[in-house]
Amino acid sequence: MKTDIEIAQEAELYPITEVAKSLDMTMDDLELYGKYKAKISDEYLKKIENNENGKLILVTAINPTPAGEGKTTTSVGLGQAFGKLGKKAVIALREPSLGPCFGIKGGAAGGGMAQVVPMEDLNLHFTGDFHAITSANNLCAALLDNHIQQGNELGIDTRQIVWKRCLDMNDRVLRNVIVGMGTKMDGFVREDHFVITVASEIMAVLCLADDMEDLKRRLDRMVVAYNYNGEPVTAGQIQATGAMAALLKDAIKPNMIQTLEHTPAIVHGGPFANIAHGCNSVRATKAALKMADYVVTEAGFGADLGAEKFFDIKCRQANLKPDAVVLVATIRALKYNGGVAKSDLNTENIEALKKGISNLEKHIENLQKYGVPVVVTLNAFVTDTEAEINFVRDFCTERNCEFALSEV
Amino acid sequence: MKTDIEIAQEAELYPITEVAKSLDMTMDDLELYGKYKAKISDEYLKKIENNENGKLILVTAINPTPAGEGKTTTSVGLGQAFGKLGKKAVIALREPSLGPCFGIKGGAAGGGMAQVVPMEDLNLHFTGDFHAITSANNLCAALLDNHIQQGNELGIDTRQIVWKRCLDMNDRVLRNVIVGMGTKMDGFVREDHFVITVASEIMAVLCLADDMEDLKRRLDRMVVAYNYNGEPVTAGQIQATGAMAALLKDAIKPNMIQTLEHTPAIVHGGPFANIAHGCNSVRATKAALKMADYVVTEAGFGADLGAEKFFDIKCRQANLKPDAVVLVATIRALKYNGGVAKSDLNTENIEALKKGISNLEKHIENLQKYGVPVVVTLNAFVTDTEAEINFVRDFCTERNCEFALSEV
Amino acid sequence: MKTDIEIAQEAELYPITEVAKSLDMTMDDLELYGKYKAKISDEYLKKIENNENGKLILVTAINPTPAGEGKTTTSVGLGQAFGKLGKKAVIALREPSLGPCFGIKGGAAGGGMAQVVPMEDLNLHFTGDFHAITSANNLCAALLDNHIQQGNELGIDTRQIVWKRCLDMNDRVLRNVIVGMGTKMDGFVREDHFVITVASEIMAVLCLADDMEDLKRRLDRMVVAYNYNGEPVTAGQIQATGAMAALLKDAIKPNMIQTLEHTPAIVHGGPFANIAHGCNSVRATKAALKMADYVVTEAGFGADLGAEKFFDIKCRQANLKPDAVVLVATIRALKYNGGVAKSDLNTENIEALKKGISNLEKHIENLQKYGVPVVVTLNAFVTDTEAEINFVRDFCTERNCEFALSEV
Amino acid sequence: MKTDIEIAQEAELYPITEVAKSLDMTMDDLELYGKYKAKISDEYLKKIENNENGKLILVTAINPTPAGEGKTTTSVGLGQAFGKLGKKAVIALREPSLGPCFGIKGGAAGGGMAQVVPMEDLNLHFTGDFHAITSANNLCAALLDNHIQQGNELGIDTRQIVWKRCLDMNDRVLRNVIVGMGTKMDGFVREDHFVITVASEIMAVLCLADDMEDLKRRLDRMVVAYNYNGEPVTAGQIQATGAMAALLKDAIKPNMIQTLEHTPAIVHGGPFANIAHGCNSVRATKAALKMADYVVTEAGFGADLGAEKFFDIKCRQANLKPDAVVLVATIRALKYNGGVAKSDLNTENIEALKKGISNLEKHIENLQKYGVPVVVTLNAFVTDTEAEINFVRDFCTERNCEFALSEV
Repeated sequence: MKTDIEIAQEAELYPITEVAKSLDMTMDDLELYGKYKAKISDEYLKKIENNENGKLILVTAINPTPAGEGKTTTSVGLGQAFGKLGKKAVIALREPSLGPCFGIKGGAAGGGMAQVVPMEDLNLHFTGDFHAITSANNLCAALLDNHIQQGNELGIDTRQIVWKRCLDMNDRVLRNVIVGMGTKMDGFVREDHFVITVASEIMAVLCLADDMEDLKRRLDRMVVAYNYNGEPVTAGQIQATGAMAALLKDAIKPNMIQTLEHTPAIVHGGPFANIAHGCNSVRATKAALKMADYVVTEAGFGADLGAEKFFDIKCRQANLKPDAVVLVATIRALKYNGGVAKSDLNTENIEALKKGISNLEKHIENLQKYGVPVVVTLNAFVTDTEAEINFVRDFCTERNCEFALSEV
Repeated sequence: MKTDIEIAQEAELYPITEVAKSLDMTMDDLELYGKYKAKISDEYLKKIENNENGKLILVTAINPTPAGEGKTTTSVGLGQAFGKLGKKAVIALREPSLGPCFGIKGGAAGGGMAQVVPMEDLNLHFTGDFHAITSANNLCAALLDNHIQQGNELGIDTRQIVWKRCLDMNDRVLRNVIVGMGTKMDGFVREDHFVITVASEIMAVLCLADDMEDLKRRLDRMVVAYNYNGEPVTAGQIQATGAMAALLKDAIKPNMIQTLEHTPAIVHGGPFANIAHGCNSVRATKAALKMADYVVTEAGFGADLGAEKFFDIKCRQANLKPDAVVLVATIRALKYNGGVAKSDLNTENIEALKKGISNLEKHIENLQKYGVPVVVTLNAFVTDTEAEINFVRDFCTERNCEFALSEV
Repeated sequence: MKTDIEIAQEAELYPITEVAKSLDMTMDDLELYGKYKAKISDEYLKKIENNENGKLILVTAINPTPAGEGKTTTSVGLGQAFGKLGKKAVIALREPSLGPCFGIKGGAAGGGMAQVVPMEDLNLHFTGDFHAITSANNLCAALLDNHIQQGNELGIDTRQIVWKRCLDMNDRVLRNVIVGMGTKMDGFVREDHFVITVASEIMAVLCLADDMEDLKRRLDRMVVAYNYNGEPVTAGQIQATGAMAALLKDAIKPNMIQTLEHTPAIVHGGPFANIAHGCNSVRATKAALKMADYVVTEAGFGADLGAEKFFDIKCRQANLKPDAVVLVATIRALKYNGGVAKSDLNTENIEALKKGISNLEKHIENLQKYGVPVVVTLNAFVTDTEAEINFVRDFCTERNCEFALSEV
Repeated sequence: MKTDIEIAQEAELYPITEVAKSLDMTMDDLELYGKYKAKISDEYLKKIENNENGKLILVTAINPTPAGEGKTTTSVGLGQAFGKLGKKAVIALREPSLGPCFGIKGGAAGGGMAQVVPMEDLNLHFTGDFHAITSANNLCAALLDNHIQQGNELGIDTRQIVWKRCLDMNDRVLRNVIVGMGTKMDGFVREDHFVITVASEIMAVLCLADDMEDLKRRLDRMVVAYNYNGEPVTAGQIQATGAMAALLKDAIKPNMIQTLEHTPAIVHGGPFANIAHGCNSVRATKAALKMADYVVTEAGFGADLGAEKFFDIKCRQANLKPDAVVLVATIRALKYNGGVAKSDLNTENIEALKKGISNLEKHIENLQKYGVPVVVTLNAFVTDTEAEINFVRDFCTERNCEFALSEV
C-alpha cells in the first residue's frame, strides 16, 4: 500500500487556473504562486459578494486519541464526494505550521486518497502567509523595544510587556529568553518569549478580519504592554499598525489549491486551537460560501474545544450559521475511551464500546444544543466488526443523529 | 518633480510573461508569483546551459559619501540603454533586505527613471527567498540546540557555539540574547545572537552555489560550533543539511522582474558587502550571461571593498571574467573627498577636485590590475561646471580610461 | 516612653567575662569578640558535658497577627525573672538576619526592659557566623560550577542544579539570576538563584550538628545537583566539605551575650522557620542545659509551625525533652482572630474573644499531645479589661493549663 | 625542612595583649577577637595622635616572575630584625583575600621564619573586615535596584549602572550575570557583575579614609550609575551612605596581630594593586607611625605599579613621606628576565644577569626620582654564586644604592 506522501507526490495536479475554471474564475481572479497555488484577488471577492451563500458543513470529532480519527481526511473526502455527485463544492481548511511539520506530528493535508495538494509546498512556505505574520509580529516587537530605547514616551513598564516575538519553528530554547544585552545602544535588557507563529495574536486577528480595514482596526487594538500606571498600551499607540498592515497585504488574501480529485480547496490562516479559535480565516469561509453550493470546513481538536470555539467565536463574529455538523468517530477510539489497551483495539469488544461511547454521547448532546443537525461519521477500519458498527448506528439513531460509514 | 516612489507606483508594468518573451522564454520557463514576479525554472536553466555567454559589465563606485553616487541607478540605466540600442540586455542585482527598509535607509531599487519594479513587492516579501533563508538558518539553530538537549552525542561545547539565529529585521535587542531558560524541558541556557538575514552564512553560500547539489555540499560544511576537544562541528554532523535544502528549494531559483523600460532584471540573493561578498547570486549572473548579450551587474560599497570581493571571491569561485568595469563617480563626491563641506558642493572648485580625485585615481589603479577595461561614468548634476567635467575627462584619458557622462 | 532602641543604647552592659563568671566560666572558656560578645570554647563544652541537664522551657505563641504577641520579649523576660528569683538561668535564642534588619521588620532582640544586648552588634555582623555560612555556601557553589567548567567528570546536568548561592541581604533582583556569561573562561551559562543566608541548607545543618565531625557528615550529604542520569550529586562528591568546614570552624561555636539584667543569653544559629526548622542551634541548647538550672528557648512563628518543628525535628534529632511550654497570647490578638478590626481592638468585646479563642484552644490541644505541661501567658496591655482577662484565665483552667499574666 | 604552614601552625603565639604591651598599650586600647587578634580602639588612636612619627620604610620589588621575589617575607623579616636590634618596630600589611586563598595562589602572610600569625585566621574570616565591605557593597547595590523598583525618582538608566556587586570569592560564573528576572515584584532585569571584594570601590575608599567622617564623605561621592540625562548618580543620592557606614563601623579600625618573633603587625585593608592602589589602609600606616620608631610597609606588584601608586596616590592623599625604599630582587629573577629558562636558573650565568639587570636598573631609576634612598635587597638562594652576588652589589654601588643580602 502506498503511503500518503507517495500518493501525494505521484498525484497529477491540474494547473490551478483549470481548477478555478470549475468555479467560473478567470486568470485575472487569481494571483499565481507557481502553477498549482494561487491567491484569490480582492477584486474577485468584491465581485462575488452578493452571490447566494452555499451550505456550510462543519467537520469535527470526538476526543482525539492515539488511535486517530481522521478529521481532515473526512473533510477532504466529503468535498470530493460532493464533486462526484456533480455538486459544486469547496473545502476550507487551515494552513499547516512549518514548526510541527519538522517535528513528530508531520503535515496536515489529509490522508490516503483524500488529500490536498501540492502537499510539500503546503507544508513548507506555501504562499508566505506565515512568514508575513512572523515579520509583522516581530516588527511590532522591534518597534516596542525601540520606543522604549528612544525615550519611552508612553512609560512602558519593561516588567509588564505582554507582546511576544514569534517564529514558525518548534524551538524549545526560544520559549524563554532574555533580550537587550550588550551596550547602551543594544537596548534595555528584559525577559521575552518566542511563541510559534500560529500562536501569535496577529494570526488570530487576521483570521477574524473581514478585510484590510477591519484588520487594521484589530491590529490597532492589540495590547502589547502595560505602562507604569498599569494601563494597557496598544500596537496602535506605538505606531505599529501601518507597517504591520503593509507586511500583511498579501497574507490577508485566501489561497486556493486542489484535492487529489481537483476539488477546489481554500486553505487560509491557521490559529492554534488551544490558545486561539483554531479554524481557517473568516474571509476564506465567507468567500467559499459565495463560490460553491457546499462548503466543508473543519475545527481543530475535539468537538468540545474546536467546534464550540467555531460556534462561539467564529460564527458569532462573522455571522455564520452551519447547516450541518459532521462528527467523526472511530470504533477503535471509542473502545480506547472505554478502557481498551492500544494493542487490543483490533478485537471486537462490545462492552468497551458501550462504556466508551459516552464520549460520543456527550459530544452529540453538546452539538445539538446549537440547533444544527449532527451526522456521526464512522471512519471505518477493516478490523471493525458488524456488531460494533451496528451498535454505533443504533446508538446514533436513538439520539436523532444521522449515521454514515466512511470507507476511504 | 516626482519622487522615486511616485514614479515607481505610477509605472505601467508589463506582465512578467511579456518581459520574458523578449528573451524567448515561454510561460513554462517561469514560476509566477503574481503577475509581475517570477522565478526561473530549473528546466529553463538546464535548457540554456550551452548557450554562448554574453558580455559581463560590473558597475562599482568610488568611496561612498553622504553626497551619493548612484550605483544601482547607473546599472539600471545602463541596462535600459542597451535596450534602447536594440541590444538584448539583462540586469543582475541583489534583493534588498526588509530590515533596513523599515529603517532610515529605505529600499534599494535604483532611482528616477532608472528603477526596477514592482518596487513595493521587492522591498517587502518579494518571492520569499529571505524568509526561506531565515527559516533554514533558524532550523539549523533549533537542530543544534535539540542535539544538545537529546544527549549531545557530538560533545558540543555550549560555550563555543558560533551559529547564530537570524531575522530579516533591524532589531537591536536581539543582537545579544540568552536562550534556553525555564525547566529541564526548555533546553540548556546559553548566550546567543540574532543577525540580520542578509548576514547569515546561508545567504553567502546560497549566492555562491552552482545548483542544489553544490548548495547541499556548502551547507554541509558550515561550522556551527566546536566540541569539548575544540574540534569544529558542522551543519552536516547535526543532520541539518537535508531539511535546510528542502526549505531552500525555491530560494535557489533566480527571480525575474523588470525595469521601468521593461528590461528584464534578475534580482537574486543579497549577502551583506561588509561581512560577506556583497553581490547577487552566481546562478543569477551565470543564467543572465546565457540569456542576453549584455549583462550589467553590481557590487556593494566602494570599488576597494565590493569590486575586489567580486573579483577575488565570486569570479574565482564561479570562473567569471568581466568584460568591463564601470566606475561611478560624481563631481560632488570628488570635491567632498577633496575637503569641501557638504554645503559648498554646488560651487565650482577645481582645486578641491584636484585633491579629491586621488580617490578616483586609486580605484582606477586597483581595477586596472585585474586586466579589465575601466569606464569612469560621471553621474552628472546640474551644478557641475564644464571646467570640472573637462578636468575629470582629461584625468581619465591620461589613465587610459574611457569616460562617460551619465545624465538621467 | 523610651523606644526599645533607646533603652538598648543606654543600657549599662557588664563585660561578657563578668556575665560568664555567674556561670563559673573563666576567661579561658571564652573567645572574646570585643568586650561584650564571646564565643564559648570547645574545651569548655567538653568540660561540662557530664553536668546534669537543667529544665528546658519552650516559648511559643498563637498565630501571629499584626497586633503582635511578644514571644522574644516573653523569653527574655522569663529568663530575667528566673534570675530575680535567684535561679541560674540561661536564654537560648536565634541570631537575627542582617537582611530583614535593613528592611521593614527591624531587629529581633526582644523589647522594652526585656532585651538582649549589645543590640546593634547583634543586628549587624555579630560574631560573623552568618558571614561564614554565606562564604561556605558560595564556596560550594563556586566549586560546583568549577567542577563543570573543568570537564564535569560527574556529569552534572546544568538544567538540574538545586544548590543556590546566598547573601545575608534582602535583595529582590538576586532571586532569579543568570550566571556564567562571557567567554569560554567565564563558565557555563545557567539559571541560578540567591536565597537569604538564613534559608541556606548550611544554616539548617549547622544548627542540627552535634559537633564539627557531625557537621562534616551533614555537609557531605547535601544534594547540590542531579547528573545526566537523574542521580543526586552531593557536596561531598564535588570535594566541597573540607573547605566549607574550615570556613565554619568558628561559626559552629555558640555565642554568649547578656540581657538588660545581665542574664546570660546564648544566641546561636538562625534557620528560617518557614523552610527550615526555625530554632537556635542544638549545640547552644545542649550547652545551655549543662550550664544552668533553667533554659528558656524559643521557636519561630506560631505553635502550629514553630513548636511542632521544634518537637518533631530538633527534639528528635537532639534527643531533647522540654519540661514546659509557654504559649504566648494577647487579648488583642484573640479578638483580632475573632473578627474585630485592628482599630477596634482597644474596646472590650467578650463575644469576639469567645470566637477568637478557638485559635488558642487548638494550639493548647496540639501542644498537650506532646505530653508536656502548657502555660498560657497573656502578654498584658493596658486596654485589656478584667472581664476579658478572667475569661481567658477560666478558659485555660478548664483545659488544664496554667495561666500567667505578663506585664512588662 | 618544614613548610611555611607547618612553621605557622607550630608557632607559639603570645596573647595579643602581651604583644600590645610592648607598645605600652593596655587591654582597653584593644577590642579582642579571640586571644591573638585585636582591633585598635578609636580612643587609642585619638590618644596617640600627637606622638612623633617614626621612620617609614617601603618594601617593593622588581617585576614579579614565576621565580618569586619574597616581598612580604622581606617586610616581615625586616620588622623582626629591628626588633632584634632593640628598636620599636611595627609592620603594616594588607589583609589577604579569601578568594585567591582557596585558589592556586595561597595565602599572603610571608614565609619561612618571617611570617605573621595566626596565619589560618588571617587567611579565613580574620576580624570580618572583608565581610563588612562585602555587605556594605551589596547593600548599596540592593538600595540602587530598590530605588529603581520603587519608581526611580532619580531617573537611573539601567543600561548605565556602574556599581557592581561583590563576593570575597574567586567565582568565574559571577563575573557577568543578569539579575532581576521573575515577576514584576522581582525588579527590573539588567546586566550586572560581581567583582572580588578587594576590587570593590569601598575597599579603596576605606583604605584612604582618615576616619569615619572622612569615610562617609568618600562613600557619599561614589558614582553608582548615570541617569537618563547622562549625569552621574552617587551613593549619597540613593541614601546608601548611612547604612554602609553602620556596616563598616568596625571594619575601619586597624587590626593587630604578631610576627613569629612577636613583632606587632598591623594588618588592615587590602585593595587590589591592579585596579586600586594596592596597599594597606592610611589609618593603619598613620597609626603605626605614631606607635613605633620604624614602620615597615609594603606595596603590591612590582615597583613600577605598586610603589608608584603608593607614592602618587597614598602618600599624596595622606601626606606621607617614606624615609627609605627597599627594592627586593633575586638573582634568579634577574636571570629569568635576562632570558634564562626556569629550569636553568640554578646555573651561574653572568651574561644573562647582565642582560636581565636592566629591569632592576629601571626600577632604581624610577624610585630615585622620588628623592628617597633606595636599598636593593637580594633575597639570597643557595644556588646564587659569589660572582653573581658581587656583580649585583657592584651594580648597585655604581648607582648610589645601598645593597643588602637577605638570607632567611
